[in-house]
Amino acid sequence: MDSGTPRLGILMVGMGAISTTLVAGVAAIERELGKPYGALTQMALLDGAPMSEALQLPKLNQLRFGGWDIADGDAFDAAQRAAVLSPLLLRELEPALREITPMAGIHDPRYLRRAEGRRLKPQTNKFEQAEALREDIRAFRRRHNVDRVVVLWCGSTEVFSSPGPAHQNSRIFETALKQDEPTIAPSMIYAYAALKEKCPFVNATPTLTVDLPVMLELAEANGVPVSGKDLKTGQTLLKTILAPGLKQRMLGIAGWFSMNILGNQDGAVLDDPAAFRAKEESKLSALNHILEPAVYPELYGQLSHQVKINYYPPRGDNKESWDNIDVIGWLGYEMQIKINFLCRDSILAAPLLLDLALLSDAAQRSGRKGVQEWLGFYFKSPQVKQGHPEHDLSVQYRRLQEALREMARQTEKVGVRS
Amino acid sequence: MDSGTPRLGILMVGMGAISTTLVAGVAAIERELGKPYGALTQMALLDGAPMSEALQLPKLNQLRFGGWDIADGDAFDAAQRAAVLSPLLLRELEPALREITPMAGIHDPRYLRRAEGRRLKPQTNKFEQAEALREDIRAFRRRHNVDRVVVLWCGSTEVFSSPGPAHQNSRIFETALKQDEPTIAPSMIYAYAALKEKCPFVNATPTLTVDLPVMLELAEANGVPVSGKDLKTGQTLLKTILAPGLKQRMLGIAGWFSMNILGNQDGAVLDDPAAFRAKEESKLSALNHILEPAVYPELYGQLSHQVKINYYPPRGDNKESWDNIDVIGWLGYEMQIKINFLCRDSILAAPLLLDLALLSDAAQRSGRKGVQEWLGFYFKSPQVKQGHPEHDLSVQYRRLQEALREMARQTEKVGVRS
Amino acid sequence: MDSGTPRLGILMVGMGAISTTLVAGVAAIERELGKPYGALTQMALLDGAPMSEALQLPKLNQLRFGGWDIADGDAFDAAQRAAVLSPLLLRELEPALREITPMAGIHDPRYLRRAEGRRLKPQTNKFEQAEALREDIRAFRRRHNVDRVVVLWCGSTEVFSSPGPAHQNSRIFETALKQDEPTIAPSMIYAYAALKEKCPFVNATPTLTVDLPVMLELAEANGVPVSGKDLKTGQTLLKTILAPGLKQRMLGIAGWFSMNILGNQDGAVLDDPAAFRAKEESKLSALNHILEPAVYPELYGQLSHQVKINYYPPRGDNKESWDNIDVIGWLGYEMQIKINFLCRDSILAAPLLLDLALLSDAAQRSGRKGVQEWLGFYFKSPQVKQGHPEHDLSVQYRRLQEALREMARQTEKVGVRS
Amino acid sequence: MDSGTPRLGILMVGMGAISTTLVAGVAAIERELGKPYGALTQMALLDGAPMSEALQLPKLNQLRFGGWDIADGDAFDAAQRAAVLSPLLLRELEPALREITPMAGIHDPRYLRRAEGRRLKPQTNKFEQAEALREDIRAFRRRHNVDRVVVLWCGSTEVFSSPGPAHQNSRIFETALKQDEPTIAPSMIYAYAALKEKCPFVNATPTLTVDLPVMLELAEANGVPVSGKDLKTGQTLLKTILAPGLKQRMLGIAGWFSMNILGNQDGAVLDDPAAFRAKEESKLSALNHILEPAVYPELYGQLSHQVKINYYPPRGDNKESWDNIDVIGWLGYEMQIKINFLCRDSILAAPLLLDLALLSDAAQRSGRKGVQEWLGFYFKSPQVKQGHPEHDLSVQYRRLQEALREMARQTEKVGVRS
Repeated sequence: MDSGTPRLGILMVGMGAISTTLVAGVAAIERELGKPYGALTQMALLDGAPMSEALQLPKLNQLRFGGWDIADGDAFDAAQRAAVLSPLLLRELEPALREITPMAGIHDPRYLRRAEGRRLKPQTNKFEQAEALREDIRAFRRRHNVDRVVVLWCGSTEVFSSPGPAHQNSRIFETALKQDEPTIAPSMIYAYAALKEKCPFVNATPTLTVDLPVMLELAEANGVPVSGKDLKTGQTLLKTILAPGLKQRMLGIAGWFSMNILGNQDGAVLDDPAAFRAKEESKLSALNHILEPAVYPELYGQLSHQVKINYYPPRGDNKESWDNIDVIGWLGYEMQIKINFLCRDSILAAPLLLDLALLSDAAQRSGRKGVQEWLGFYFKSPQVKQGHPEHDLSVQYRRLQEALREMARQTEKVGVRS
Repeated sequence: MDSGTPRLGILMVGMGAISTTLVAGVAAIERELGKPYGALTQMALLDGAPMSEALQLPKLNQLRFGGWDIADGDAFDAAQRAAVLSPLLLRELEPALREITPMAGIHDPRYLRRAEGRRLKPQTNKFEQAEALREDIRAFRRRHNVDRVVVLWCGSTEVFSSPGPAHQNSRIFETALKQDEPTIAPSMIYAYAALKEKCPFVNATPTLTVDLPVMLELAEANGVPVSGKDLKTGQTLLKTILAPGLKQRMLGIAGWFSMNILGNQDGAVLDDPAAFRAKEESKLSALNHILEPAVYPELYGQLSHQVKINYYPPRGDNKESWDNIDVIGWLGYEMQIKINFLCRDSILAAPLLLDLALLSDAAQRSGRKGVQEWLGFYFKSPQVKQGHPEHDLSVQYRRLQEALREMARQTEKVGVRS
Repeated sequence: MDSGTPRLGILMVGMGAISTTLVAGVAAIERELGKPYGALTQMALLDGAPMSEALQLPKLNQLRFGGWDIADGDAFDAAQRAAVLSPLLLRELEPALREITPMAGIHDPRYLRRAEGRRLKPQTNKFEQAEALREDIRAFRRRHNVDRVVVLWCGSTEVFSSPGPAHQNSRIFETALKQDEPTIAPSMIYAYAALKEKCPFVNATPTLTVDLPVMLELAEANGVPVSGKDLKTGQTLLKTILAPGLKQRMLGIAGWFSMNILGNQDGAVLDDPAAFRAKEESKLSALNHILEPAVYPELYGQLSHQVKINYYPPRGDNKESWDNIDVIGWLGYEMQIKINFLCRDSILAAPLLLDLALLSDAAQRSGRKGVQEWLGFYFKSPQVKQGHPEHDLSVQYRRLQEALREMARQTEKVGVRS
Repeated sequence: MDSGTPRLGILMVGMGAISTTLVAGVAAIERELGKPYGALTQMALLDGAPMSEALQLPKLNQLRFGGWDIADGDAFDAAQRAAVLSPLLLRELEPALREITPMAGIHDPRYLRRAEGRRLKPQTNKFEQAEALREDIRAFRRRHNVDRVVVLWCGSTEVFSSPGPAHQNSRIFETALKQDEPTIAPSMIYAYAALKEKCPFVNATPTLTVDLPVMLELAEANGVPVSGKDLKTGQTLLKTILAPGLKQRMLGIAGWFSMNILGNQDGAVLDDPAAFRAKEESKLSALNHILEPAVYPELYGQLSHQVKINYYPPRGDNKESWDNIDVIGWLGYEMQIKINFLCRDSILAAPLLLDLALLSDAAQRSGRKGVQEWLGFYFKSPQVKQGHPEHDLSVQYRRLQEALREMARQTEKVGVRS
C-alpha cells in the first residue's frame, strides 16, 4: 500500500451478523481466503474496465473499520455469536477481528424491545448523546488517520414509526433532542451525528433513520449523500427480478405467497409484531409498484400478496424463503411457480454494504449530496426524493450503470478529490 | 366487424396442441369465455394506449385460421387429442373448431421419426410439393378473401441438422428441390413456399426452417419478415429472467441443473435423442450468452449447466420444470435456489404465437423484411442477422418496445398499408 | 338393489365442502362417473376378499343422506359454493343433489364467529334444541325407511374450549341444557341428540363434541360407537407416515416447520386465532407422541415444531402444504427434507367420512360401543379411552386390520344384525 | 476398556467416501466430537434398555478397522478426497486415520470401467487372488489380535451381471477361479475369501457379491451370516416409508418420478449406463413390491415409475433427490406430492454400515447363518432366501425388532459367545 493513498473509514452502527461478516470478509479477502462474490465494486466491469479502477475506489487494504454496539465483546466475539462464517475461517481471522472493539452505543427499549443494552454511553440526554457520537467519529478519524468516513446503519430494526413534527427541520429537531423528545429514536441520533460530521450515511434496514425532512435538509446543507432503506437480499431480490418478467409477458398473477424462516437475531427481533410491521411494509410495496394493478386490473387487480416471516431457530443465519406464485395464462388457465431459496442473510448483505460504503464515498467525492436514487439497486424500499421508487432490478441496474459511468467520466477528468 | 376491414389469414404448419390452443382460444375470447392472458397485443399498453390500437392491429374477429397436418381429423379432433383445454370448454367451441380441417401435409420419416403420416399430399418430388403448398396458400387467400397471410411453423421438432451446400441460395436450392436433395427437410419446403408467396414466416420450434441463407435471401428479395427459433415459454423464460439478475448482483453460479417432465406429443418426440439434440442446443445457449463466462471466469467459468427432458405420460401437456441453481456468495459461501414451475406448455405458447402473427404482419405493413431481431423477446434461440443474440428478457423487452414505438409512429403518420 | 336389504342413513352436521363432496361422490360413483379412491371400504381387500363383502357393508345405493346446515340452499347450491368438484361433473349430478335440502340448524356466534346463521331452528333453549334435533333424526328414519343412522359432525371448527363442570355426566348436562349453560356448544347438542337416538357419532373436526365424560357415559349406556377427532388428511397424514420412519432409523430432527395455504371456508374460519388454537393443538401433538423426546432427548429434545395455517384465497379448496424438516445425521451433519403437497382438502376427506360411517355402523352391528380406538387411523387427534393415542400410521393400520378381521369373523358367524 | 473384552475387526472393501466416513466417525465419537445419529446400535432402545447392552455388542473402542483399495493413499487421504467431513474435523482425526492404510486390492476394468487401479495385488490368477485376500484377513486378525472379523463390501458398483453357470456351487466356482473365468467379478472373489475365512459379509451396493448360489452354500457350510444388497439411504428410504402409507389409505398413484443429482465418485461411476442398470433395477423394484399393481390394478396398474440419476459435480457427496408423485384421490381428482431431500450420501450410509457390522457379528455369535432377511431394514434390495423381499420400512422394522429381541433373549441366557 502506498502510504500516501488516502484511507477510508467505515463506521457501522450495530456490530452484528452483517457488520462482522463484512469486516471478517474484507480481512479474509486480503489474506486470499475468499473472494468478494456479490460485490460489484470488486468483481464487476464498467465498460470493460474493473469498476474499482474506473471509479478510483479505495483498495480493501485502505479501509479502516469501526462501530458502535450495545452488546459486550469485540468483533471476534460478535462474529462467533452470529455464527455466519465457519469456525475454521474465524479462527484464522481472530487477530484481525480482536482489534476492533465497538464503541459504547445508545439504546431506547421503546424502540428495540427484544435486545438488552450492556454497553451504553453514560449520557442520557439525546442531544448529549448526539454530541458524544460526533466526538466518536472525530476520534476515529484521528486514531486511524482517515480523512473520509462513511456511516452504515446496520442496527436491529426498530419499532415502526412515522415522521412526526419533531423531524421537520434541524432547528426543531435540535430543540427536541435537548428536550428528550420521545419520537426521536436512537437511529435518528446516529444519523444526525453522521450528517453533522459530513459522513455519507447508508441505511441497511427498514428503520427511518435518514428518511426524514430534517436529515435531508442536513444532507443537502453539508454535502452528504444518503441512501436506504433495507438491503434487498433474498426473497425480495428474487421478486424484483422475476415479477417484471412475468409482467412483460402479460401473464396474470392471482396470488403471491411469500414465506420466510430464519433463526438469527433479526428473526427474533421481527417476531415482535411492531418491528415486523416496518419490515412488512418494506417487503409488500415492491410488488405493487412493479405490477401496477391500477393500470392492469385484469392481470393484477385481484392479486393476493402475503409476506410471512417466521422465527425458526434451527436455521440460524441461513434464512430460507419459499414463494408460491399463482400465475394466470391464456384463457385463465392456472399455473404455479414455487421458489425455494436457501440463502444466507449476511452473506448476501455484506457485499452490498461494501459497495454502498465505497460508492457513497465516491458519490461524495464527485460532489453528489442528498438522496442517491441510483443506489436503489441495493434496497428493498429505495429512498427517493419524491414520487414512487423504481423496484424492477433490471431498470435499477441500468440507472446504477448510468450514474457510475457519469462518475467515472468525472473521475477521469478531474482525478480523485480527497 | 366492419366488412370493409381487411382480414388477416393465419396458416399453421402442424395442427397440434399449440395451434389448436391458439385457434380455440381466439374463438373462446370472441365468445367471452376467456381472456387473452399472455398476449401483449391484446393486453398491453404502449405508452398508455392499448397496443392493438397504437399499431392498428386486426381485431380477433378479423383473423382467419387454416393450416396443414399429416394426422387425421379436424381442429376439434386435434384439440381433443391434445387435451390442453377442458372438455367443457371444447364442447362450447366444437362448431368453430369443426370448421377448420387441415390441408394435407408433406412428411419425411428421416426428419420426424416418431410420427406417422396419415394425410399426405400426392406429390413426392420436393419442388412439386413446394408448388402444391404455394397453391394451398393462394387457395386459402381466395377462399377467405384475405389479402395478407402469415405462416407459423408449429410442427414437431425435426431431427437436428445444420445448414449445408443446398441451402446457400435460391438458385441452388430450387435445383436441389427438383432433385429431391435429402438435406432439404419438410420444414424448409414450407418455409420456401411461404416466402415465395410473400407470407411472413414465424418459426416456433428449434428446427432450422428459415435460419438458412436461401431463406434470408428470399425474405429480403420478397419483402418478408421472418423470425424464430423456438418459443420461449417455461423453464427458459424463467432462466432468462433470473440469470441476468443474479449476474447484475455479481453472484457466482457453480451449477444450474434444469429438469423437465412432460407427457405430450412434444415429449414423446423429444424422447428421440436426435430430436432432443436440437432442443438441447437451443436450451443450453441462453445461459452462456447471458453469463459470459469468458468475461467473468471467477463467477461463471466452472458452471455446470445441464438440461434434461423426460417423457412422463401422467402429466400430459402440463409440463413441469424443476431447476436447481447453486449460487456462490461472499467468500464462496454456497446458496441454492430451487424453482418448480408447474406450467402448461400450450397455454404459454398460444399467446406468443398470436403476438408473433400479428406483429409479423404489422412489421410487413411498415416495410420491414428479413430477420426481425426485435422479436427475440419471444424465442429461446433468437434468430439474428449476425453475431450473438440477446437473451436477457428485460433487454429483449426494451428492444421490442423501441421497435413497436417506431412502428406506432409510422402507423400514425401513414395509416395502415393493406 | 334388493328391496329387502336394510338401508343406512347418514346425517351430516354442516353441509359444506366435505359433506357435499361425499354425497356428490357417492352419486357419481353410482353413475360410474368416478371411482372411490381413498375409501378402504370400497377399494381394499381384507385377507384377499373385498372389505365390503367381508364385513357385509351396505352398498353405496343403500345409503340415504341428509343433514343440517345454517346456510341457505340445497346440497347442489352448497356443492357449487364449495367449488371442489368440476362444474361439468356437478351439472351431471344436479338432480341427485337438489333432492337433499339440509334441515335447519342451531348456531351460537360465541362458538363460531366467522359464519352467519341463515337457517335456524326456532327453539332458543338448548334442551329444546336437542329435542328438535332428536325429532329430526326420527323423522329422517321414517321418511327414508332406514333403521340405522350414523351422524357425522362436519361443522366448522368451533372456538377452542375444554371440558368443564357441565360436561361431567348426563344428569348435570341435561340440567345445564335446560338452563342454557354457556359452556355447552352447538356441537355438543348435536352429539347429545345423536347418542340419545342411538346413532353412532363421528367427529371429523377438532371440536370437542363427543370427547366429554357425558358423551362417553351416554355412548356406553346406549350401545353407541363414537370416534374422533379431526380427519387426518393432508400434512398430518404425511407427517405420521414419515416421522415414524425417520425415528426408526434413529435420525435426529432439529426442526419441523409445517406451513399451509388454503382458501376455503375452513381457511377463513381458522383465520380466527381462537378457532386455530383447537386446530393447532390437534396438529402439534402427533409429532410429539411419535418421536418421544423424553425417551430420546439427544434426537428430539431440541425439536422446534411449528405449524402455520394461512388463509390464501386464490387456492380455494386446493390446500397446499409445505414442510421443511431439519434432519440430523451421523456426527451431527445436517440434512433437509422439503415436502410440498398440492392436495385437495375435501377430496381427501370425503372417502374417510364414507369409511367412518360404514365402519361405525358395522361396529354397532357387532356390538361395539363407546370410543372406537381402532378408528384412530382416520384421525389427527385420535380419541382414546385413556392414555395417549397412537399416531404412527402403520401401527394404526395394523390395529384397524385386527379390528376389521375380528368383526369379519363375527360377521361370518352370526350374519348381519340389522 | 476392559482388556479382556474381545475386539471386533471390520474389513472394508473399497476405502472411499462411505468407509472413511464410518472410520472417521467412530474416531470422532470416541473423542466426543460427534454423536452416532442414525445408528440403532448406538442410539436405540430395545424394550427400554440400550440396544448395545441388550445384545452385548462390542463398544466402539473395541473395533479395529482395515480394508482394501486400489487407489493410492491412506484413510486420511481418502477421507480428504471424499470431502464428506469438514476439513476442521478431519484435521482433528488425522492421526487416527493415518494409521489405516488399505491393503492392495484386485481390479478388473471390465467390471469397473471408470476407475483406475493404482494399488493392485501382484497375483493375476483369480484363485491366487482369493488366496491372497484370505491371507490378508488372517494377517489382520493376528496384527490386531481380533478373533472375529466382519467384511463389508463398499466398493464401486460393478457393471450389471446375472448369476451364471460358474456361480452355482463351490466346486464349479473354485475350478472357474483357477481358470480365470470372466464371469467371476472382483466382488465375488472378495466375498468368497470372506466366507472361507468365516467372516460375516455385508453387501452395501447393488453388485451381486453374495447373492449367488455358491456364496449361500459357503455361508451355510461355514456358519456365516450374509446380507445385502444396496444400502437404503436417501430417496429409496423415503419411498419405502411413504408408499406404504399412501397404499394403506387406498390412494391411487399415476406416476412417481424420482430424480437424483450427485457429484461424488458414485455419481461418476453411475454415469456409465452399464453400472446404472444394476442401480436402477435395485431402485425400481421396491415400489412395485409395495404397491402390488396386480392386486390393485385400479390404483397402481397404470403407474409410470421412473428413476434418474444425474452426475452433477457442484454437489459433491451432498446428493439431492427430487420426487414427484402424482396421487389420485376420490373420483379421480389429481394431487401432487413433491419431495426434495437435500441429503448426504455417506452420512446416511455410515451408521447403517456400523449397525450391519455389529449385528452381523451378533448374529454369528448367536448361531445364525446364511441370508439374514431381518436385516432387510437396511437395504434397497433386500436379499432373501426365496420369494420376494419385504420393502415396507415399518414392516422391516418390526421384523428387525423381533429378531433382535430373540437374540437379546439368547444373549441373556447364554452370555456372549466369543
